[in-house]
Amino acid sequence: MRLTDYTDYALRVLLYLSVRPAGLSTIQEISDAYGVSKNHLMKIVQQLGELGWVETVRGRNGGLRLAEHSRALTVGEIVRKTENDFAIVGCFGPTDEGHKGCVIQSHCRLQGVFAAARDAFLAELDKHTIGELAHPANDLARLLNIPVRTPIPAGEFIPIRHSSLNET
Amino acid sequence: MRLTDYTDYALRVLLYLSVRPAGLSTIQEISDAYGVSKNHLMKIVQQLGELGWVETVRGRNGGLRLAEHSRALTVGEIVRKTENDFAIVGCFGPTDEGHKGCVIQSHCRLQGVFAAARDAFLAELDKHTIGELAHPANDLARLLNIPVRTPIPAGEFIPIRHSSLNET
Repeated sequence: MRLTDYTDYALRVLLYLSVRPAGLSTIQEISDAYGVSKNHLMKIVQQLGELGWVETVRGRNGGLRLAEHSRALTVGEIVRKTENDFAIVGCFGPTDEGHKGCVIQSHCRLQGVFAAARDAFLAELDKHTIGELAHPANDLARLLNIPVRTPIPAGEFIPIRHSSLNET
Repeated sequence: MRLTDYTDYALRVLLYLSVRPAGLSTIQEISDAYGVSKNHLMKIVQQLGELGWVETVRGRNGGLRLAEHSRALTVGEIVRKTENDFAIVGCFGPTDEGHKGCVIQSHCRLQGVFAAARDAFLAELDKHTIGELAHPANDLARLLNIPVRTPIPAGEFIPIRHSSLNET
């Protein structure tokens, strides 16, 4: 029992973008970070854009960023959109795509049992948001080669008053 | 997200045998009843025999029957044995079979989320036994072309006293 690589990679893209503190990312960067084919990711990013979960900025300095509201997306919401087949057993799917209907389908209780199991699976995924999974952010960012802190411009540098550290 | 046909057919074999009131069944009968290839079923029946869930009687009048204790088997117990892959996402499986480890694996919370979802799925399946699913037995038997009642030998025929039906 597996989810598709498509779902796996969609979650990884969202996780990458949620760990990135600011600025835009490119598909190339995400592809390099995970070692996953850029072609695979392009189709996924397109869907994530269509769903409004990822914002894309076109042009030479363009790229992707997570839509702010996407931090609240649950893993269940994502998986329901990216996974194209939740037919746990053949009789859940359409009978016209090469699957002959099962002869006991009209009286088989297994269908209800598997539907309940699928719902329990998704209910568990609904307990967790992308924003929550993006922790520990610094550790994830390090593993993904994302610069954790943007350098502070020289003019805005405010030195810590060391004396104040000892005041309590 | 699907279970394998192997698991689907294993459940159907157990269901068939649990609906059969007495006597032995053949793989040919089960194959005919479901319209599923006999070759597929032979491998499955062999495993069910090795697990002690199905008893096989060899010889000309041989066949299969459900081991009595198998009525108490839960769907979860069966699926755990027949499904060879519960790696919901790539990083659950062994890295040596063509799957490159995911770079964030050491700090990724998704693994725990998916493991909990898989456990919730199986916990739901553990609530139901094969014996329970074998109802309504007569309806299922009819759909599977299983003779529901063995004919009563002539000498044991006890006529209903119609007069008693009116006594209350």
